[in-house]
Amino acid sequence: MDLESVKKYLEKGGGEDDKNGSTVEGLPLRFYERFIMQGIHVDLIEPGRIICSMKVPSRLLNSGNFLHGGATATLVDLVGSAVIFTLGAPATGVSVEINVSYLDAAYAGEEIEIEAKTLRVGKAVGVVSVELRKKETGKIIAQGRHTKYLAMTSKM
Amino acid sequence: MDLESVKKYLEKGGGEDDKNGSTVEGLPLRFYERFIMQGIHVDLIEPGRIICSMKVPSRLLNSGNFLHGGATATLVDLVGSAVIFTLGAPATGVSVEINVSYLDAAYAGEEIEIEAKTLRVGKAVGVVSVELRKKETGKIIAQGRHTKYLAMTSKM
Amino acid sequence: MDLESVKKYLEKGGGEDDKNGSTVEGLPLRFYERFIMQGIHVDLIEPGRIICSMKVPSRLLNSGNFLHGGATATLVDLVGSAVIFTLGAPATGVSVEINVSYLDAAYAGEEIEIEAKTLRVGKAVGVVSVELRKKETGKIIAQGRHTKYLAMTSKM
Amino acid sequence: MDLESVKKYLEKGGGEDDKNGSTVEGLPLRFYERFIMQGIHVDLIEPGRIICSMKVPSRLLNSGNFLHGGATATLVDLVGSAVIFTLGAPATGVSVEINVSYLDAAYAGEEIEIEAKTLRVGKAVGVVSVELRKKETGKIIAQGRHTKYLAMTSKM
Repeated sequence: MDLESVKKYLEKGGGEDDKNGSTVEGLPLRFYERFIMQGIHVDLIEPGRIICSMKVPSRLLNSGNFLHGGATATLVDLVGSAVIFTLGAPATGVSVEINVSYLDAAYAGEEIEIEAKTLRVGKAVGVVSVELRKKETGKIIAQGRHTKYLAMTSKM
Repeated sequence: MDLESVKKYLEKGGGEDDKNGSTVEGLPLRFYERFIMQGIHVDLIEPGRIICSMKVPSRLLNSGNFLHGGATATLVDLVGSAVIFTLGAPATGVSVEINVSYLDAAYAGEEIEIEAKTLRVGKAVGVVSVELRKKETGKIIAQGRHTKYLAMTSKM
Repeated sequence: MDLESVKKYLEKGGGEDDKNGSTVEGLPLRFYERFIMQGIHVDLIEPGRIICSMKVPSRLLNSGNFLHGGATATLVDLVGSAVIFTLGAPATGVSVEINVSYLDAAYAGEEIEIEAKTLRVGKAVGVVSVELRKKETGKIIAQGRHTKYLAMTSKM
Repeated sequence: MDLESVKKYLEKGGGEDDKNGSTVEGLPLRFYERFIMQGIHVDLIEPGRIICSMKVPSRLLNSGNFLHGGATATLVDLVGSAVIFTLGAPATGVSVEINVSYLDAAYAGEEIEIEAKTLRVGKAVGVVSVELRKKETGKIIAQGRHTKYLAMTSKM
């Protein structure tokens, strides 16, 4: 791909007209979390563990028509933060590190399961593991970890 | 936080009415990339290196009113993929691994700079580094790496 | 710590006489793997999964007298590579990415358990998860992932 | 590879006689750091930045006869810890996360350069970046990040 096309892709989404652009401008403050999580259902919640399910929505697809890697990372962030709350923490702190391995594609309409488990929640540092699986087969779509700094009263 | 509140947060965005919910339902196919990238400007593009800038938009804030960690990870994904194209690759492949360290908060309206550099682009595996900085001070907001499998004609 | 002391620490191991230095010089070719793995016992091995145990040896301690973070990362590397072999791969390929979260200290003489599981082994890319736990309590010491490029006949 | 051979590899280093085994048994307490770092030379040290060089020693090779991935991760750990000291921290804290991308092989006798830079050193959390390069060509061998929890007076 030539440099001009790469630039155009970044600035205009690959040459689409800006219909989507104007849609984006009108979106509400802090819309991002709702944009990602709309449609999630919590199947199990207990101290240290959450299992959710979700049908892959068309708005979160990438150009290959499967769940966008950025959306997957955001689910690792969000469900990984929520599971820290299940241990009674008053706040989930700030993110220190997120990592994700991508193992398989999840296509539009597929039912996926997101499982978050706390690996450690101390006074200052919390680490959780998050796995996305295909609900029908159990095949792993992605596995990640999310590390947070929890002691927000003192400065990080 | 009690378990019922955590569940409500995941399913309803913390108890908001579903005005946002219905906004989400109507969004176009593959809206995600445009949702993240709208407002990006490419300042420099050359083989192996891209620098973009962006004013942190209110739609991408988290509940702490700074750039959402999931949005940051998605920028590492997207700008990191684009920089692989600058070396003439016909496709950017599929993501294998993304990791991000979060170092500072970027507040609404702040000008940020996103620099992506290729560390290695071979026939099968490409690895890039992406850094987000505050434009005014150069302070690092986040640094990540993105690993892709490029040889898409054969099976991963 | 002043800069001169940091330099001395890196070059001389913090000011020790070089008794250890001369010991190091005489060590055999490719001694590293044996140095790390000596004392490992395989408790379970089946396709896609290995459980080993090991008593933390004094040679692998850090200055805080618990298992060195570099030794932990090397165990993620080595046991993570071995588990790819259990699926019949003729070679384990080359490392693409290793990451480790450190969750607890393992002191000298403690019995630890190392469990490696394949998350995905395709033709080109293999990803495994490795967890170190205290044998007595099951408490997690570290969790990591290891990504390898397997198709070594073609160029990476 | 059959399961018995994998087991043998883990327990006996691939069927070697135990000459190396008995060498290992006699090694001093906390030998690990010296074992890795012997031969490192500090070329530049300033607040927030260290550059070292090293000739890849035969003891740190893997079975492919290039620098072992575990040794690389340990250098990310050690030089990454040392660079935190250059900012005057009284202690370097405990490791929270280490990640490494492997980009090229470094063969026995090759001169390599290890550069560590602090990305952020706050009161509680420090993050550094470490890069290994071939001295002659500047080609990147590996790039990693090391995150530490620094406030050791309070409990992690």
